Amino acid sequence: MTPLDVVVMEQARLRQQQLTKPAGSLGKLEDIAIQMAGITGQLLPEIKQKAVIIMAADHGVAIEGVSAYPSDVTAQMVHNFLRGGAAINALARSAGARVIVVDIGVAGDLSHPDLISRKVAPGTADFMLEPAMTEAQMLQAIQVGMDVFDEQLRQGVALVATGDMGIGNTTASSAITSVLLHTPEALVTGRGTGINDEQLEHKIQVIEKAIEKNAPDANDPLDVLMKVGGLEIAGLVGVIVAAASRRVPVVIDGFISGAAALIAVELNPMVSNYLFAGHVSVERGHRLILEKIGISPLLDLQLRLGEGTGAVLAMSIIESALRAHREMATFAEAGVSTREEE
Amino acid sequence: MTPLDVVVMEQARLRQQQLTKPAGSLGKLEDIAIQMAGITGQLLPEIKQKAVIIMAADHGVAIEGVSAYPSDVTAQMVHNFLRGGAAINALARSAGARVIVVDIGVAGDLSHPDLISRKVAPGTADFMLEPAMTEAQMLQAIQVGMDVFDEQLRQGVALVATGDMGIGNTTASSAITSVLLHTPEALVTGRGTGINDEQLEHKIQVIEKAIEKNAPDANDPLDVLMKVGGLEIAGLVGVIVAAASRRVPVVIDGFISGAAALIAVELNPMVSNYLFAGHVSVERGHRLILEKIGISPLLDLQLRLGEGTGAVLAMSIIESALRAHREMATFAEAGVSTREEE
Repeated sequence: MTPLDVVVMEQARLRQQQLTKPAGSLGKLEDIAIQMAGITGQLLPEIKQKAVIIMAADHGVAIEGVSAYPSDVTAQMVHNFLRGGAAINALARSAGARVIVVDIGVAGDLSHPDLISRKVAPGTADFMLEPAMTEAQMLQAIQVGMDVFDEQLRQGVALVATGDMGIGNTTASSAITSVLLHTPEALVTGRGTGINDEQLEHKIQVIEKAIEKNAPDANDPLDVLMKVGGLEIAGLVGVIVAAASRRVPVVIDGFISGAAALIAVELNPMVSNYLFAGHVSVERGHRLILEKIGISPLLDLQLRLGEGTGAVLAMSIIESALRAHREMATFAEAGVSTREEE
Repeated sequence: MTPLDVVVMEQARLRQQQLTKPAGSLGKLEDIAIQMAGITGQLLPEIKQKAVIIMAADHGVAIEGVSAYPSDVTAQMVHNFLRGGAAINALARSAGARVIVVDIGVAGDLSHPDLISRKVAPGTADFMLEPAMTEAQMLQAIQVGMDVFDEQLRQGVALVATGDMGIGNTTASSAITSVLLHTPEALVTGRGTGINDEQLEHKIQVIEKAIEKNAPDANDPLDVLMKVGGLEIAGLVGVIVAAASRRVPVVIDGFISGAAALIAVELNPMVSNYLFAGHVSVERGHRLILEKIGISPLLDLQLRLGEGTGAVLAMSIIESALRAHREMATFAEAGVSTREEE
């Protein structure tokens, strides 16, 4: 993995100071343009092709009653993605991004010409009782993510968003976050698809028991992923690591994508340079993850859907930032006076 | 002015509950779709044409040294808008919005085939010494805004953003905000284009003196506008009132647009139903205005540029919200299971 191109970043910073606006007045848009210059090594980057990669998988722990929806919904929503009827489809059309759907571990049999079928297992084991995955499954799932990203890179992609589908996956994400951030389960566990107070209390207890039972090693992110993670989360770790290695920026979606990003950054801190946080989710653990990684969310629209929805929404902000960076006139070009001397 | 169509809003709310996602999981996107249904009276609204209307004018108070830039920059930036080199041009191209530039009170002579020349006066008077405008000028400027909006409506516009250009106009906006929110000047005055601590202290004193000198009536928003406002702010009041009267939604930009929106809402509280807050500005008075009006910003990107930049950026969020609302499948259509009974 290579560091950001600091020379081009400095050139981009200088350019931002010469554009016809008070220095700094475009706020985060300026930061985005400078970071994108560093990622791509180009002073005036342009995003031609975009994709959102949705990893779908089931969770054994769903049987413990941690979600408002039955596990069947995972497969049903994959069909919905493939027919173009989900939120991510509408938002990706709006953003001009391809939707890539990967079955990395859905419990039921799925078949569709547009589905990437790379099922590692028909869902994880119930991690309240045993590790979610074997080490081999975990590593295979990461490899699937890397392979899927590389195929998108071959087809051409300059900005990739992460997405997820999997009933039970906020439970896995809370468990990962609790262990890696050394934070009590109750502080990183939210209502997911919309459970009530009693169910939330139960969900927290399930996570507490899972961590006690499996004793994941907080200093070994892959051990945590294997024991209390999920196949789609492992797949997203692969996507993120592969993209960062190939110098392609990644827009992280919400809590599940955030848990994957946290693992990827713990594996290699340089990954964080290649990340944008599309939004901050209602799920309470997500903000803590972003603070730990050290990236600031572009949007806060009170989303809690996943699928990549918040990441894809943020793509228009990133593209607008680059457009201003590329297309604005400088003070000299426009004949505009600079600041009065103080 | 008509109230929102509550019947269609309720239909839109029901539709949101039937779409394939946990209820409420699209957060503010759901609120946007429901409000847009109420504004337009259509269950599935679609935005075909968009425009940003930039009102440009100079401020007599600029001579008191309240800005980091000389007054000449107002005219220079108007030329920049007309040549397509400013931030708003790049962002409007990204959003697919027309850029409408109005000279409602620029000090210098301006001429360009694309410029709407409706100069009420060559800038306001220095309101530290006397009222910024006469009553006739203030009313004429509001009329200009209404006329400009109506011309855009004739050409076709389904979503309008407000923009501003005028060296010194954060000073006027702070004065308006201080009076109408009954809040001390120092709490609603910021650094504008980027003044230092000493200049900020001076700017606050100028505003304090202006309010003392002119004694604007806090119960009469037009008196406040006339005495310590600006021609572009009056023009934007006209745009906002006209759009709301014609049931066209308005995306408010930052602090200057916010001051105009505040006056419009004080004139008629029903105006607020037709407003979206594109973003919250770094200028400290802006958040207080949004709280008073009761609208929540869609973006917080640390912008402080004006021109309509934050409003135009938010247009893609509004369009994405409508796209999800229109295009998503319902649970029944997609064969997806609804929540388990609790």
